[in-house]
Amino acid sequence: MTDDLVTMKRIGTLKTPFKKKEDMPIQGGFFATEGRLILDEKYSKGLKDLDEFSHAILIYTFHRSEGYKLEVRPFLDDISHGVFSTRAPKRPNPIGLTIVRIVSIKGNTIVLEGVDMLDDTPLLDIKPYVPQFDARDDVKIGWLKGKIDTKNGHVSDDRFSMSSETSKK
Amino acid sequence: MTDDLVTMKRIGTLKTPFKKKEDMPIQGGFFATEGRLILDEKYSKGLKDLDEFSHAILIYTFHRSEGYKLEVRPFLDDISHGVFSTRAPKRPNPIGLTIVRIVSIKGNTIVLEGVDMLDDTPLLDIKPYVPQFDARDDVKIGWLKGKIDTKNGHVSDDRFSMSSETSKK
Repeated sequence: MTDDLVTMKRIGTLKTPFKKKEDMPIQGGFFATEGRLILDEKYSKGLKDLDEFSHAILIYTFHRSEGYKLEVRPFLDDISHGVFSTRAPKRPNPIGLTIVRIVSIKGNTIVLEGVDMLDDTPLLDIKPYVPQFDARDDVKIGWLKGKIDTKNGHVSDDRFSMSSETSKK
Repeated sequence: MTDDLVTMKRIGTLKTPFKKKEDMPIQGGFFATEGRLILDEKYSKGLKDLDEFSHAILIYTFHRSEGYKLEVRPFLDDISHGVFSTRAPKRPNPIGLTIVRIVSIKGNTIVLEGVDMLDDTPLLDIKPYVPQFDARDDVKIGWLKGKIDTKNGHVSDDRFSMSSETSKK
């Protein structure tokens, strides 16, 4: 097949306070961590009307993640799970997804709230977040049930780094 | 920079009833259209525990979309918007995202409800849908306000196809 490989390009860069994997929160939604998205100027026209939306879906690459494992022991549990039932960064395609709040847009710069990715993360796409499309009721969250502490949030430890993961399997 | 381009690989294929762009619904959530995801067998172990989740986020490529436009006139409106404030398929990186319901998983095949992509769409990633991570309150949906008819749904017309888009700018 001709479309088994597809090349994606960086269209912008996410600036966040997280310089190291160890500093990162598990998900952005629990914190209001501010970050910035610097879109490549050639795409600026594509931002038209996005400032009328309160939230956006960011799709980006886990650029510091190397390789993948089909079973991972995620931060929020003590036993391993199939990678597709986790949000772990070491995936067959290292694609990340975070819903952020749009604070302001000026030129090619978007100020965001709720970032949870590493500084200098390459951006692949921005989509408007639309609950009618993207939110669901009657949801079951499998092994994550009872493990998400939305009050205190969770900060990533080093379990996703190369050395510690390797030693655990 | 070394990470300005990244190669993604097809990890599976989405089988849906939609053979042509003209047949596609705008978003999958309004219909219970059934489809199947055939994961490449080499990734089957990664599905462990996903059957305990009710919904999944599918990330895939708009494999029949060529080129992109920074301003598009989406199906749900009569005026053009920046592509990043729409879900149109002709994006700088042709990445699609749909939340589906997991009906069953057997081996490397997942039966899904709520598909809205073309038949034979290449899959890039599966993530568990977790409202605590992925749902937001107090959302503003910009130009889409009042334009989403969740009762009747909306079926795509030919506005995203090459010929009609080209003739409209």
